[in-house]
Amino acid sequence: MAVYTEVSDDDLKALSAAYNIGEIVSCKGIAEGVENSNFLIETTSGRYILTLYEKRVDPKDLPFFLGFMEHLAKAGCVACPVPIRGRDGEALRTIAGRPGAIITFLRGIWPRRITPEHCAELGTVMAKLHNAGLTYPGTRPNNLSVEGWKQQAGRIAKETAAKVDITLPSLMRTELETLAAAWPQLKSTPDLPSGVIHADLFPDNVFFLDGKCSGLIDFYFACTDFLAYDIAISLNAWCFEPDGAFNITKASRLLTAYESVRPLSALEKETLPLFARGSALRFMLTRLYDWVNTPPGAMVKPKDPREYLHKLNFHRRVKNISAYGLA
Amino acid sequence: MAVYTEVSDDDLKALSAAYNIGEIVSCKGIAEGVENSNFLIETTSGRYILTLYEKRVDPKDLPFFLGFMEHLAKAGCVACPVPIRGRDGEALRTIAGRPGAIITFLRGIWPRRITPEHCAELGTVMAKLHNAGLTYPGTRPNNLSVEGWKQQAGRIAKETAAKVDITLPSLMRTELETLAAAWPQLKSTPDLPSGVIHADLFPDNVFFLDGKCSGLIDFYFACTDFLAYDIAISLNAWCFEPDGAFNITKASRLLTAYESVRPLSALEKETLPLFARGSALRFMLTRLYDWVNTPPGAMVKPKDPREYLHKLNFHRRVKNISAYGLA
Repeated sequence: MAVYTEVSDDDLKALSAAYNIGEIVSCKGIAEGVENSNFLIETTSGRYILTLYEKRVDPKDLPFFLGFMEHLAKAGCVACPVPIRGRDGEALRTIAGRPGAIITFLRGIWPRRITPEHCAELGTVMAKLHNAGLTYPGTRPNNLSVEGWKQQAGRIAKETAAKVDITLPSLMRTELETLAAAWPQLKSTPDLPSGVIHADLFPDNVFFLDGKCSGLIDFYFACTDFLAYDIAISLNAWCFEPDGAFNITKASRLLTAYESVRPLSALEKETLPLFARGSALRFMLTRLYDWVNTPPGAMVKPKDPREYLHKLNFHRRVKNISAYGLA
Repeated sequence: MAVYTEVSDDDLKALSAAYNIGEIVSCKGIAEGVENSNFLIETTSGRYILTLYEKRVDPKDLPFFLGFMEHLAKAGCVACPVPIRGRDGEALRTIAGRPGAIITFLRGIWPRRITPEHCAELGTVMAKLHNAGLTYPGTRPNNLSVEGWKQQAGRIAKETAAKVDITLPSLMRTELETLAAAWPQLKSTPDLPSGVIHADLFPDNVFFLDGKCSGLIDFYFACTDFLAYDIAISLNAWCFEPDGAFNITKASRLLTAYESVRPLSALEKETLPLFARGSALRFMLTRLYDWVNTPPGAMVKPKDPREYLHKLNFHRRVKNISAYGLA
């Protein structure tokens, strides 16, 4: 629900001049995504997405994101929007006073009601993305890993957290300590491989057509981290029911499909519950921050952090990967 | 900046089944308009807009609005979105639990920086719309005319209005009295013709391509009223500069172009300053209401009612139509 920057007639004229994409005949702001401003642009040659990068995105990270999308497109195994280069050869430029890029339009609809088949499709595509990422030369630290969680937690007063849920202050403290102590050093080994992860594979970033995944979007959290951590994020985002129940069938389909493309090592399987727990904490903390800092009545409704508190508590009780439906 | 209702996978399947528009391959919420939820739908046959009508629209008015769009399309002189009828012959149905319709996609971009040429185009197209409306059988009272203003004003406390501008309470009282006394009875005569007016011809509802008007959108304020009142609304919406100055060149181009299609009667010219004053009061009141009732931090930023207070005061000083650049 987000268009933060307005695009003027003059901006559109400048765009037409800068790109070889034909004449712009329509430009509509899209009410999706909360980080950037997105516009659906129709030209005499086709449809494109214009993205203007807003405050939460660091402009110096943009070449990494756009480069990765180009890399995936060239690899040809994972469909995603592709940055369009202008007449000057550049994909990234200043548009309406902000860093911006034009990317190709990706057909598909993100699923509102998740089925086990969606989870299997996701598993396959995520594994392909991880394989393709191994040959991408760029790197970007995950600033929303352990150190980032500590910073995030430090920005939320105990009293504020306690008002959301009475258990939160002590849970945040003990989880941060436990996870920081147990978290592996990021160093790619065959046992615990790292590489480029999407890091935000929620349903609204995964498009489907006729039951098949038609592509992934929104690579603006992509970073270098453990590949299995990406799986852990998806277990949280795709395998819990609206009533909070963990759907082991969905998890099993996701993991089995993933393994059909890239088998998990014994250490990855062993570490997955820890990663799921860390990923739950990561989204709980960012949601908690938005929850307590969004003014009442704002159109962008913050998401309830307690959803991820519940998921975190689920993973704290998990002993091994069999809880996720994998032998 | 508005998508109030979410459309699910099942809703889209039901849509595909109800219409003969091909398979839906994309559905994106559009961040434009503040009254209804709009989605840009791409199907294997083309592009469409799905509109879900929200609280501010009375469902019983929808046949009037959709019928008028169909009427204009048939008349062929004013381009606008056309409602698509489903396999059952109906254009209006329940979608995602709300009254909804699918309309054709209209190419064009609304102008952010208004030129006198835009105003001339608008004048021509508005006159054509008024002529075409004369053969439309439907009628709908303008609930935002004198009686509506009184109700609107009654919902805003004097103290609240005074906080926005100290002159407001007394101005609102005297203007309501003066305008109610001077306002003509709505009865179509050759001297002061009435018919279907758009009633919301602001720049964001008028699309352009290559400097020519490519069509009008958003007919959800259309109603039966004096045709010259529609002109008055547009004088306010198009002919003031961002710094508040009235641009008589723009007004002159708008009126002259209008008259090239439908000449104004002497009485219409004489009444135009009164209508401009009433129209300024109308938008000042609705904006004032939103201004004082929108919670801080809301994503839909309310528009400043003082813009229209300024316009109202301008028209109060106008003696005759020469102030608008017409002899």
